[in-house]
Amino acid sequence: MKIGFIGLGHMGSAMAGNLLKAGHDVSVFNRSPGKAESLLKLGADAAADIAGACRGEVVITMLADDAALAEVAWAEDGLIASLSRGAIHLSMSTISVALSERLTQAHQQAGQRYVVATVMGRPDMAAAAKLFIFAAGDPAAIDACQPLLDALGQKTSRVGPQPSAANLVKLTGNFLQAAIIEALGEAIALIGRSGMDRRAYVELLTSTLFTAPAFRIFGPLIADGAYEPAGFAAPLGYKDILLLRTAAENLRVPMPLVSLLHDRFVRLFAQGGERLDWSAIGGLATQDAGPPRALTTSSPSPAA
Amino acid sequence: MKIGFIGLGHMGSAMAGNLLKAGHDVSVFNRSPGKAESLLKLGADAAADIAGACRGEVVITMLADDAALAEVAWAEDGLIASLSRGAIHLSMSTISVALSERLTQAHQQAGQRYVVATVMGRPDMAAAAKLFIFAAGDPAAIDACQPLLDALGQKTSRVGPQPSAANLVKLTGNFLQAAIIEALGEAIALIGRSGMDRRAYVELLTSTLFTAPAFRIFGPLIADGAYEPAGFAAPLGYKDILLLRTAAENLRVPMPLVSLLHDRFVRLFAQGGERLDWSAIGGLATQDAGPPRALTTSSPSPAA
Amino acid sequence: MKIGFIGLGHMGSAMAGNLLKAGHDVSVFNRSPGKAESLLKLGADAAADIAGACRGEVVITMLADDAALAEVAWAEDGLIASLSRGAIHLSMSTISVALSERLTQAHQQAGQRYVVATVMGRPDMAAAAKLFIFAAGDPAAIDACQPLLDALGQKTSRVGPQPSAANLVKLTGNFLQAAIIEALGEAIALIGRSGMDRRAYVELLTSTLFTAPAFRIFGPLIADGAYEPAGFAAPLGYKDILLLRTAAENLRVPMPLVSLLHDRFVRLFAQGGERLDWSAIGGLATQDAGPPRALTTSSPSPAA
Amino acid sequence: MKIGFIGLGHMGSAMAGNLLKAGHDVSVFNRSPGKAESLLKLGADAAADIAGACRGEVVITMLADDAALAEVAWAEDGLIASLSRGAIHLSMSTISVALSERLTQAHQQAGQRYVVATVMGRPDMAAAAKLFIFAAGDPAAIDACQPLLDALGQKTSRVGPQPSAANLVKLTGNFLQAAIIEALGEAIALIGRSGMDRRAYVELLTSTLFTAPAFRIFGPLIADGAYEPAGFAAPLGYKDILLLRTAAENLRVPMPLVSLLHDRFVRLFAQGGERLDWSAIGGLATQDAGPPRALTTSSPSPAA
Repeated sequence: MKIGFIGLGHMGSAMAGNLLKAGHDVSVFNRSPGKAESLLKLGADAAADIAGACRGEVVITMLADDAALAEVAWAEDGLIASLSRGAIHLSMSTISVALSERLTQAHQQAGQRYVVATVMGRPDMAAAAKLFIFAAGDPAAIDACQPLLDALGQKTSRVGPQPSAANLVKLTGNFLQAAIIEALGEAIALIGRSGMDRRAYVELLTSTLFTAPAFRIFGPLIADGAYEPAGFAAPLGYKDILLLRTAAENLRVPMPLVSLLHDRFVRLFAQGGERLDWSAIGGLATQDAGPPRALTTSSPSPAA
Repeated sequence: MKIGFIGLGHMGSAMAGNLLKAGHDVSVFNRSPGKAESLLKLGADAAADIAGACRGEVVITMLADDAALAEVAWAEDGLIASLSRGAIHLSMSTISVALSERLTQAHQQAGQRYVVATVMGRPDMAAAAKLFIFAAGDPAAIDACQPLLDALGQKTSRVGPQPSAANLVKLTGNFLQAAIIEALGEAIALIGRSGMDRRAYVELLTSTLFTAPAFRIFGPLIADGAYEPAGFAAPLGYKDILLLRTAAENLRVPMPLVSLLHDRFVRLFAQGGERLDWSAIGGLATQDAGPPRALTTSSPSPAA
Repeated sequence: MKIGFIGLGHMGSAMAGNLLKAGHDVSVFNRSPGKAESLLKLGADAAADIAGACRGEVVITMLADDAALAEVAWAEDGLIASLSRGAIHLSMSTISVALSERLTQAHQQAGQRYVVATVMGRPDMAAAAKLFIFAAGDPAAIDACQPLLDALGQKTSRVGPQPSAANLVKLTGNFLQAAIIEALGEAIALIGRSGMDRRAYVELLTSTLFTAPAFRIFGPLIADGAYEPAGFAAPLGYKDILLLRTAAENLRVPMPLVSLLHDRFVRLFAQGGERLDWSAIGGLATQDAGPPRALTTSSPSPAA
Repeated sequence: MKIGFIGLGHMGSAMAGNLLKAGHDVSVFNRSPGKAESLLKLGADAAADIAGACRGEVVITMLADDAALAEVAWAEDGLIASLSRGAIHLSMSTISVALSERLTQAHQQAGQRYVVATVMGRPDMAAAAKLFIFAAGDPAAIDACQPLLDALGQKTSRVGPQPSAANLVKLTGNFLQAAIIEALGEAIALIGRSGMDRRAYVELLTSTLFTAPAFRIFGPLIADGAYEPAGFAAPLGYKDILLLRTAAENLRVPMPLVSLLHDRFVRLFAQGGERLDWSAIGGLATQDAGPPRALTTSSPSPAA
């Protein structure tokens, strides 16, 4: 299929590579130059500008945030101006529900099609074409994108006809992971404080009832306090919590656990934790608990 | 092995049955009568009192709470008074760390041995001998109990030499499950409010990154609001959160997510929810969110 | 003094009236017409546009939110374009710290002066010229405004040389009031649930240690559940909590009580509470508590 | 009036002194000896045991906690055993609602009368006979005690016929104060982080809308971080929060702000803060916020 791909960060590069390997004809574009080289070796075309990536049936965007995508969409030579009628914008970035709804309208008015397909998985899963994909939009348009999605992930779950639903689902996915980080962080703080071995505790959890990837990935990081290098940097996790919170405010859904996570991120940043993995919020409970002390029957009474 | 078994509730009966099936010689006792009948058919002996269940190498306790176990331990004919020197109290109830520490001392002073082996799993897992078991105490004493544990669970994880460590681990396990309930509850409230199908959302989660049993068990219950009949009644979940909170207070570990869960249970009980499954706390976010409304770009501004 | 006054809502009209009564020469402007009539009777001039209100030494703005003030400031005939060099923009609206900092720069570049003087007090206090005023900015510029401030309030507290400091102080003032609302709401819920008289309880509090106006104003409203008509509408209170939260995020200060208040407002709006007084968030604890029941010694144990 | 007074700590000694000065005939008793000397000089009688303090019309208890009062009440020579029929136990300690209800029953069964009169005020207010008193119980019994209460406080508010109501009111009073501490702590953290002067900010608050004693007492302590010596030690504040929380759990009232305060105290103790004034929980937000930095327009975006 003749497609464009805009946004060649860690995730985007790995994804564009898989599309090339699957035999698609891919024009790549990235605002800051020098990101395309390895893809050119795999046979990609280097588009000179956004419009240059909009000449196929589908253009995929995989950008950092709302601002980056809005610029690509509404630039003078942007998606809205350049995509031909009937062509598809396959939007895979983690962005706000509100921006996704604005894009739904803008593409519709321009006679273009808009499909959202958000992904869960770290860059290594992207490279292995093992992403989990949540797709939403017009079923026929998703059908048209399905060969591309098959080249990118291990499974595509269809979420519904409203494109922004896939954005909301993605945001809740990151929220659930952050909730597991916080819960693990508190449990590990308690266990460590009692004098038990934190790492052995995590192994025990993940070999019994807590087998989901989030436990296996974050548990050891928190047990060891090993937050560098970041697999997913804390500011990115914070961004997603903010996007989820805004969606929840707009829909009038109080989410106290989201508020707790938010406060954890703010505290982490007050300590200069911007460069750490987002699981570092799971280390704050340990900070609060102080050094290990043996299990004890002492009461918490004032006289203690 | 010649053993006693005290406490024939849903869990205890299933467990005692598996011990009998494995060929052990089991004297059973329950304070309220009439619970032993099906076990007698499997070959159990009916002990007339606590002392009658203390004549073997090991006596297992599987009781409702601290009060019940303390009574069994310190009654005139109780465990402390009746167990012979060197015999083992294998304590499997979900009880407080503090009581477990008192029992550690009391059995030691009486020349008896005390092993804690807490379990995770609902009654159906108990019946299928598929429990996950966390054992702690003197390694030789655990070794002596291992044939019994093998008849009860799919896996025994050894937690350390201090018996109460297994109690703490068990309590954190229930905390992690309750945390997943809360997180799912908030996410499902948001999804439902946006107009998406709640059940389809849960299927999508549990078929991708959120495969742990807690997601698969509680997700559908919360999506459907199906909290009766209770698999694990809310007051029991609350009890365990209180036990964990007390342990955390004693060790001086602030756990804000535990506080949030606590407040959820209190609110559920204010509504008369005592008979519901503990996953009903996951329905409170939906109560707060009000009826579904479509995803919207409307801002949360005062003018809205 | 020859001045302009932009923004004739409940607060603005009362304030402009006091300036006229104090003998100042006031040109008034409001975007939606028909608000100026009573002021014209007091001797005000009706400015035809924003520029028309910018011909004196000082122009006061008292607008609903950031958007309204930004429009007035940067419109083609707005404050930045129209104020003469050395003239003062006396900014009295409750707006964000960030907008205030942008205005600081914009006025400086335009050779104009910018003073922030935020106010605490309801419309009746504004009418009685009893507002509390927090002023910040260049001391000489504040001196120049002092006769105006004296006509508006009972006391001007100078906060410092950076104009936005007065915005931050104002926002914390509303936060402290909202915190009192929440605390009172929880206490009154408990008292009411115990069967005691809620109103008598409030009288007892406010006649002893809790004499601050916030207790005397909000206590009876919460005790009686009397949230209409709104003295200060809930969406305005929510707006201020959002502004404070943004300021706190930018400064990296975790404020868990702000998060709790935020979640309360969202829940109130999910119930359709937009028209209620902001003290209605103090009624949510009572919702959670259920109907009164007598003080009791019953334990919170599962068996209860 | 011929009375007994049991419990000669900071508060009790000051109160007993005022009763002596008002001309009452007071037998004093304290478990640990050496506390009575200054009172003997004022004319007090030293009772040899609890029974010795129970020979008058009224015996006042002012003890540290539930355990101390329960021991005094149910000791072999304790209040229940020693008070004559119709005599009054005037219970002024800060104790649990549950214990107060047990005492209500026990005294009734013994034909004795039980009045609760809790107090608000620090030792200096006790010494100056300026306490605020909340009295509950049979009106005739309170009438009988009124001369004593008049010698102790500036005002007695009658709370109702059920004695434990006065305990609940007292506990909510301390909760409201702790809530103000937390709110002030968060506001001061934000103000300090913005570079403004914390002490000047507090003066500005307390000279305008936040005039209640709690603001004037705790604001300067938090602004200065001056938590030693303790006016009211943190473990005592924690004890009262625990008592309130238990009462709220029993009445099924979720109080999220109580949970937040609880977690603050636990964190303070994890840092070894037991010797500090309870307002030290108001310093934790400042810990989280890090060092001051200027007000800024920088966004909290991931790129920041």
